[in-house]
Amino acid sequence: MAGEIIKPQRLKGFRDTMPEEAIRRNRLTGIAQSVIESFGFRPFATPALELTEILLGKGSEENDKQLYRFQDNGGRDVAMRFDLTVGLARFVAEHAAHLTLPFRGYNTGTVWRGERPQKGRFREFVQFDADIVGTDSWAADAEIVSMFAAVLDRLDIGEFTMRINDRRIAIGLCASRGIANVSGALRAVDKIDKIGPAGVETELKEAGVEGDDAAALLSLVELRAAEEDDLLAHLERLVGGNVTGRAGLDSIRAVRGAVAAAGVPDTRVRIDPSIVRGLDYYTGTVFETTLAAAPEIGSISSGGRYDDLASLYSKQRFPGVGGSLGIDRILAALDGTQPGAARQDLVVVTGRADTLGRRFQAARRIREAGLAAEVYADDRPLDKQTKYADVRGARFVLQVEPDATVLRDLTDGSRHPVATDDDLAALLASLT
Amino acid sequence: MAGEIIKPQRLKGFRDTMPEEAIRRNRLTGIAQSVIESFGFRPFATPALELTEILLGKGSEENDKQLYRFQDNGGRDVAMRFDLTVGLARFVAEHAAHLTLPFRGYNTGTVWRGERPQKGRFREFVQFDADIVGTDSWAADAEIVSMFAAVLDRLDIGEFTMRINDRRIAIGLCASRGIANVSGALRAVDKIDKIGPAGVETELKEAGVEGDDAAALLSLVELRAAEEDDLLAHLERLVGGNVTGRAGLDSIRAVRGAVAAAGVPDTRVRIDPSIVRGLDYYTGTVFETTLAAAPEIGSISSGGRYDDLASLYSKQRFPGVGGSLGIDRILAALDGTQPGAARQDLVVVTGRADTLGRRFQAARRIREAGLAAEVYADDRPLDKQTKYADVRGARFVLQVEPDATVLRDLTDGSRHPVATDDDLAALLASLT
Repeated sequence: MAGEIIKPQRLKGFRDTMPEEAIRRNRLTGIAQSVIESFGFRPFATPALELTEILLGKGSEENDKQLYRFQDNGGRDVAMRFDLTVGLARFVAEHAAHLTLPFRGYNTGTVWRGERPQKGRFREFVQFDADIVGTDSWAADAEIVSMFAAVLDRLDIGEFTMRINDRRIAIGLCASRGIANVSGALRAVDKIDKIGPAGVETELKEAGVEGDDAAALLSLVELRAAEEDDLLAHLERLVGGNVTGRAGLDSIRAVRGAVAAAGVPDTRVRIDPSIVRGLDYYTGTVFETTLAAAPEIGSISSGGRYDDLASLYSKQRFPGVGGSLGIDRILAALDGTQPGAARQDLVVVTGRADTLGRRFQAARRIREAGLAAEVYADDRPLDKQTKYADVRGARFVLQVEPDATVLRDLTDGSRHPVATDDDLAALLASLT
Repeated sequence: MAGEIIKPQRLKGFRDTMPEEAIRRNRLTGIAQSVIESFGFRPFATPALELTEILLGKGSEENDKQLYRFQDNGGRDVAMRFDLTVGLARFVAEHAAHLTLPFRGYNTGTVWRGERPQKGRFREFVQFDADIVGTDSWAADAEIVSMFAAVLDRLDIGEFTMRINDRRIAIGLCASRGIANVSGALRAVDKIDKIGPAGVETELKEAGVEGDDAAALLSLVELRAAEEDDLLAHLERLVGGNVTGRAGLDSIRAVRGAVAAAGVPDTRVRIDPSIVRGLDYYTGTVFETTLAAAPEIGSISSGGRYDDLASLYSKQRFPGVGGSLGIDRILAALDGTQPGAARQDLVVVTGRADTLGRRFQAARRIREAGLAAEVYADDRPLDKQTKYADVRGARFVLQVEPDATVLRDLTDGSRHPVATDDDLAALLASLT
């Protein structure tokens, strides 16, 4: 290289995670995993790179600008995954014979999308999904909703509202009124929080839905504000005798009851008939979650039921229900207010380099007592060593000299002489 | 798609991680993180995708077959990372102004190498690295070695031996004997475990090292079997007055003493002058670790000191020391003998679908008692539900009926009537 320096830079839209943020992320992820496992879900993982045919289906000739797609050295058309759902579908289809159905799995992994980078939107981010695959029962839907509610409760990130619905109510309404463009109609309704009622009306018109038909769909939006009993009574009338709508209404009512039985308080879950999600992929229950302190960042946990996960790869039918946790959005909403460094750190320092053996022994005892300890490595002036401990965010400094050992608590400047390593362990226990 | 099925398949050399394996992996990773954090290390992360110039340096025109390299949609020459070290180097150079030095960081992430797949070798795997960057002191080397020893101790994977050395001993030996091809000589010695003494002699000859010079280098290998005192006395004579060799010997002796002070038993660490590591990257301390039960899988934890991490990206010098933990190799060595499912699972079943509210309530209480519980979702015959619990590896089945609730322990078939949810919590506490 002959001394030529390359500017250290990342790709646009790609981030480094600094230690404080990584500690927060690991804490949230650890709690979420623990709660999800307590609901009987087990981890699994799929590759980051898949055949493009697997990710997009056959005949995807169009050059998807969002996809990191290339020919590998073996000439295969491959791409980096853009979500975890396609991998789950391929996984279930490939391993169906070895999986106990219903399969309860969770999966956390990095995904890549070449979107235009903007505030809170990156080209590389982590997804956290949990699914129950292989059952048509709405009891599974209720477990998914209850579980994400329990996760958010344990994350201790303030109040939140889960808005749940069954897409079949709106689909049935379209059917009973003879609206042909169901996808277009639902996509319009889905935008209510972004574009308001007038905007939805315009989009409905563009989808060919006008007059009484548009009014009927907009009434789903208006119902959001109603008390639950009134809301359900209205939906009863709106659905009438339509079989699809009736199935949706019965199902969401049952899910709502089971979620309450699972201990989710009424303040945290409500039926909202305007929640339809933009994806045609969903066929029944759908949900979205808003953080009270930061509604503007969008849904922090969403999901729903799908009639068939893996139709691209298997003739076997795999109905299921799943959801995801938006760890990145939650971190963005908390914006550094959550605890970063979780430990009580201690730095072992000295004015005499020849005390190293005793410093290593002391560090070992401190770790055995459950605290984090590091030995300052360099032979530098004591005040530089203490400054390092302070900048590092350590609570304690242990100064080891040939004739004495002193523990300093940096929070109040107090000094405690230490006679033996046993005394040290007792002293730390009394201070922390 | 018109019903055309795509065969669900992965790319060659890429794996799915099944739940049992994922549970084992998460357990090992969690313990390792906890121990590493107790040594004052903090997590950080860098992107999976970087500019090829960052990964390989300028002027890397050759088509590296191992690299997943492509043009992104913006026309940039990018590649998927092949290790975590390059990312660390770029990270340190880019954020130097905001990092407290010495920086103690650990980083776990997926890396990709298009190698020929073979047993235990994959094209996608996870690395787990920890480094102390920004110090020349051998005290940092001792902390790295002690820390990986503490990690392996806590992983409870059986006995292991860490072989430590200082590369400068062999480098000094080459210098004092006027051996020109130092890299070639050290690479030959590094292969001793694969090709034996005769093989090393042949490779040395190919590197232009013969006669007494070759014998001197081979004596490093022979010394492996000696007692530590004899070994050190021999090395003293071999090193003689060579400044580099002397520095290496003094340093490894000090590291050895500090590692003992940190509580690593003598059975687990020994000086082995034949450990030189193949990479020119290392400039001082080097170490490798063998699992007693599976030496054939190679080193499960290795690393060493480097004089300068980030010379490619910065004029500032970043000396440091680091190592990595081979989670994949450890999992391969254990070959499924480690605990998979760590939880005491329970499945809530019923013969009557209308008990769902009570089943959800019971599941909630069970989770609050610290056990994992899931509600069987489908309305199927009881024996199918119990079979599912059994195949799933659950320990308990809780049968909830309108007039009675019974807990069954599948390990011994015992049945316990349950009157209230409080009774259930007490009963589970007594059984687990």
